[in-house]
Amino acid sequence: MYLHGRNVLKEILKFPSGNLKIKHILFSDQKNVSPELDQLKKSCIKKGYRVEETSPIKLQNLSHEKKHQGVVIDLKEFPYADFERLLETAGAKAGFSIALLDMVQDPHNLGAIIRTAVAAGIGGLVITEKSSTKVTPAVIKVSTGLAFRLPISIVTNMVRAIEELKKAGFWVYAASMEGTPYYQVNFSKKTAIILGNEGKGIRKLVKTNADYVISIPMESGVDSLNVSASAAILFFELRKQLWGGE
Amino acid sequence: MYLHGRNVLKEILKFPSGNLKIKHILFSDQKNVSPELDQLKKSCIKKGYRVEETSPIKLQNLSHEKKHQGVVIDLKEFPYADFERLLETAGAKAGFSIALLDMVQDPHNLGAIIRTAVAAGIGGLVITEKSSTKVTPAVIKVSTGLAFRLPISIVTNMVRAIEELKKAGFWVYAASMEGTPYYQVNFSKKTAIILGNEGKGIRKLVKTNADYVISIPMESGVDSLNVSASAAILFFELRKQLWGGE
Repeated sequence: MYLHGRNVLKEILKFPSGNLKIKHILFSDQKNVSPELDQLKKSCIKKGYRVEETSPIKLQNLSHEKKHQGVVIDLKEFPYADFERLLETAGAKAGFSIALLDMVQDPHNLGAIIRTAVAAGIGGLVITEKSSTKVTPAVIKVSTGLAFRLPISIVTNMVRAIEELKKAGFWVYAASMEGTPYYQVNFSKKTAIILGNEGKGIRKLVKTNADYVISIPMESGVDSLNVSASAAILFFELRKQLWGGE
Repeated sequence: MYLHGRNVLKEILKFPSGNLKIKHILFSDQKNVSPELDQLKKSCIKKGYRVEETSPIKLQNLSHEKKHQGVVIDLKEFPYADFERLLETAGAKAGFSIALLDMVQDPHNLGAIIRTAVAAGIGGLVITEKSSTKVTPAVIKVSTGLAFRLPISIVTNMVRAIEELKKAGFWVYAASMEGTPYYQVNFSKKTAIILGNEGKGIRKLVKTNADYVISIPMESGVDSLNVSASAAILFFELRKQLWGGE
């Protein structure tokens, strides 16, 4: 996949290079575009990435984007995190929290949720293999590159993932239209929050397997919030409860 | 402007018809598309709107959208609310709150903010005449038609609008990177919350004129939230403080 833009490259440069399958990083061959770009190029070479130069038109064609900011990254695949590994990481940390997305389909929503999750300090994200948008270039763009800062796992069976989370000591909350108002919930334990599909919400079987169903009370006559708005409200409630006193 | 979709039409049907400049409402001329569509057509006629039938292809061409759901509305202009009128409405109500957007430019953000504002029970929205996206068909679509439920005013001078809000008894809060954490603020009075441009935030002069600067504390190393995520967090904090006990 072709990614573009300086923010995305900066996030990639922070990522452990051995774990990223980068074919090459293409820079604009125009001279003196910006000192920042020259500096980024040096950092890429230092990290051992294969750097090439090409025309701005070529960069535009590859990224399908005029605002490529002089750089296009050719990444073989997004570095998904192993779910078991994510649970192990979580085991050692107090106040670790995970978000699970049950068939979220809109790349704009996934990108927005990733950006908000990182800002709120959520430790990991789990998405379903079936009927979900994966981490595409559009998702990475909307996340402002922050997708590289968040461990994101794909699971084939969400119900089994919930069972494993419970075994690992997580309290699992399903966000729905009914349920306990989110601000009455005490999120002081290790927390997993499930959010559902844009149209249908969380699947019934998935919801049944959660420990609690929680809701965001809203104005009467309004059907639902956008899933990325719900995520922002819940993730930051969690953050406030965990870190608000500090 | 051409709007489309059944949710948008349903919102339009709830709107006082005398205040909407609708040229005509175009329905698909295919028979038996859905009972819902037939019912909507009857409601339009009852409301006194000019209804016409045309081909699905024509609907697609007008709306630039395949998923027009069999209906396209030809609206002369979005019915903006008068700012002075909005203040008068606000005067009579306890817990009335207004959001002000200082040069928000992305239609997707404005639509998302409108949807969240209505869900949170925000009473009105103010946008700037200069350098703002206005309420376009794209904005109305992202708002799921809820733009018609929220009084939205355009002002030429945001600083003067803030002065008038203060005179009308509002406490004015500017959302920024620094400032008091939002959850330490007591939003029990009439509240106005200002959110800023996607890249630059709130203009300095606008911020200086607010009563308080508030912030959403976030993970270190993250620059900012998307403005629609910030709006969701702040609007629902406000709602919780105003109505959380009920």
